Amino acid sequence: MMSAKGKLYGLGVGPGDPELMTVKAVRLLQQSPIVAYLAARGKKGNALTIIESYLKPDQVTLPLIYPVTTEKLPAHLNYETLVADFYDQSAAEVAAHLDAGRDVAVICEGDPFFYGSFMYLHDRLAGSYETVVVPGVCSVLGAAAVLGAPLVYRNQSLSIISGVLPEEELKRRLADSDAAAIMKLGSNFPKVRKVVNELGLGDRALYVERATMKNERVLPLAEVDPASAPYFSIVLVPGRKWQS
Amino acid sequence: MMSAKGKLYGLGVGPGDPELMTVKAVRLLQQSPIVAYLAARGKKGNALTIIESYLKPDQVTLPLIYPVTTEKLPAHLNYETLVADFYDQSAAEVAAHLDAGRDVAVICEGDPFFYGSFMYLHDRLAGSYETVVVPGVCSVLGAAAVLGAPLVYRNQSLSIISGVLPEEELKRRLADSDAAAIMKLGSNFPKVRKVVNELGLGDRALYVERATMKNERVLPLAEVDPASAPYFSIVLVPGRKWQS
Repeated sequence: MMSAKGKLYGLGVGPGDPELMTVKAVRLLQQSPIVAYLAARGKKGNALTIIESYLKPDQVTLPLIYPVTTEKLPAHLNYETLVADFYDQSAAEVAAHLDAGRDVAVICEGDPFFYGSFMYLHDRLAGSYETVVVPGVCSVLGAAAVLGAPLVYRNQSLSIISGVLPEEELKRRLADSDAAAIMKLGSNFPKVRKVVNELGLGDRALYVERATMKNERVLPLAEVDPASAPYFSIVLVPGRKWQS
Repeated sequence: MMSAKGKLYGLGVGPGDPELMTVKAVRLLQQSPIVAYLAARGKKGNALTIIESYLKPDQVTLPLIYPVTTEKLPAHLNYETLVADFYDQSAAEVAAHLDAGRDVAVICEGDPFFYGSFMYLHDRLAGSYETVVVPGVCSVLGAAAVLGAPLVYRNQSLSIISGVLPEEELKRRLADSDAAAIMKLGSNFPKVRKVVNELGLGDRALYVERATMKNERVLPLAEVDPASAPYFSIVLVPGRKWQS
C-alpha cells in the first residue's frame, strides 16, 4: 500500500562550517518543504546558522523551542518531565506535517545520533513514519581537524566523555583512554582541566572553542579563562604517535 | 615571503556513499591537480571508489601502494620497519609534487584523523608544508545512521574500540562503556561476538558491513558467518535510551 505520509529526515549538518555539510544533507534539506530545528528561547541555534545559506525562499522553518536551558530548576519543576513533555509536543508538531504528506527535515548540529536532540524525536517517530538519517561530521572530528591533531592511531581506543560527569568518573575514564575527547565543557571546564593536569596530560591536551564556526578559537589549555569556556568547546587528548 | 610550494590537503571522504562527502571536500578535491590515495596492491581502494565520480579528466591520481597487507610476516621481515619505510617513501613522493608547486589532495576514507593512514603522511609533512585537513563522516556514524540506532544520549560515554585488542582488554573496555563501537573486525569477529555475548550485550548489539557502501549489509549479530565478516564491518552497542 502506498502511503501519502511525509518522510522524516534527520540531517547531520556538521560542526559549524556550512561547507562541512555533506552533499546528501544539502540535497535533502533543499527538497524538504518543512525544516525543523531545536533551539533555546531567544537563540537562533547553531544548526539554523549552519544551513540558512542553503535555504530556498519557499521553505518553511519550524522552530522547536526548549522549555528550559538548565537542569537546575526550582523544586516544583521536574527537569525530566518538562523535557519529556517538550519532546512529546515537538514530535506531535512534526507528525502533523508528516500526516499531511509533507516531508520534514530536522537539522542537527554535528551528527543526528551523536548526542543530538533529534534522537528524542527519532525515538518517538521512527516507528510510525519512514525515516532517513544522514550522518554528519561530528564536533570531535571537526576539532581534531582544526587543531591539526591526528586523533587515534592503529589499535588505540578512543573515549568520548561528557564533561558533566563527576570528577572521579571523569578521571577514571580519562586515565584508561589511549585517546580522548571531552565535550560539554562550559561550567565544567575547571573540573576537566584539573583532572587533565592531575593525570599529567596537560602537555598533550589541546583545546578549541566552536571548532569550524566563524568564532572558532584555539588557545593553550593553560590559558583558558575558566569563566568563559563555552559549552561548545572541546578538550582533545590525541593518541600517542605511532610511526612518525 | 610568498611560498611557491603546493598545499597538502587531507580530505575525509566519508564512509562510502559519495554523497556523504562534504561540500568542502568535493570542492578541494576538484581543485587539486594531484589526488593521492593509499591502497593495497591490486586493489582500487575504498577512497578512490568514493571520489571517482567527482574527478575531472585533467586530474592526476597518485596511488601509494602498501608493501604488506598483514602484520604476520616471515621472520626476516619486520612489519614496523617495512611500514615506516613505505610512509617515508610515500611522503617523499607527495613532497616532490608540493615542492614543484602542485597541490596534493590525499583522500581518506571516513575522517583523516580517525584511524586514517593519512596521519602518517601528516606526521611527516605537516611541519614543512601548508596543510589543510577537512574532517569527514566517520564509519561509526555512518553505521549508526544505516542501523537507525541513536548512539549516545546525554552524558553517556562512547568508547571506540579496535577489534584487534586482546580478548580480556576488549571485554574490560566494553564492560565499562555506556555505548561502544567495535571496529576492525574481519578475523577478529569470533572473539568480538564472544565477548559481546558473555557481557550479555547480544540483544543490544547491532552489526553492519560496509555501511553506506553499495554492498552494505545489515544482519543480526547472531547470524553473521564468522568466516565472512569483512574488515570494514562494525559492531555497535548503542547507549540505553533516555527520554523515549
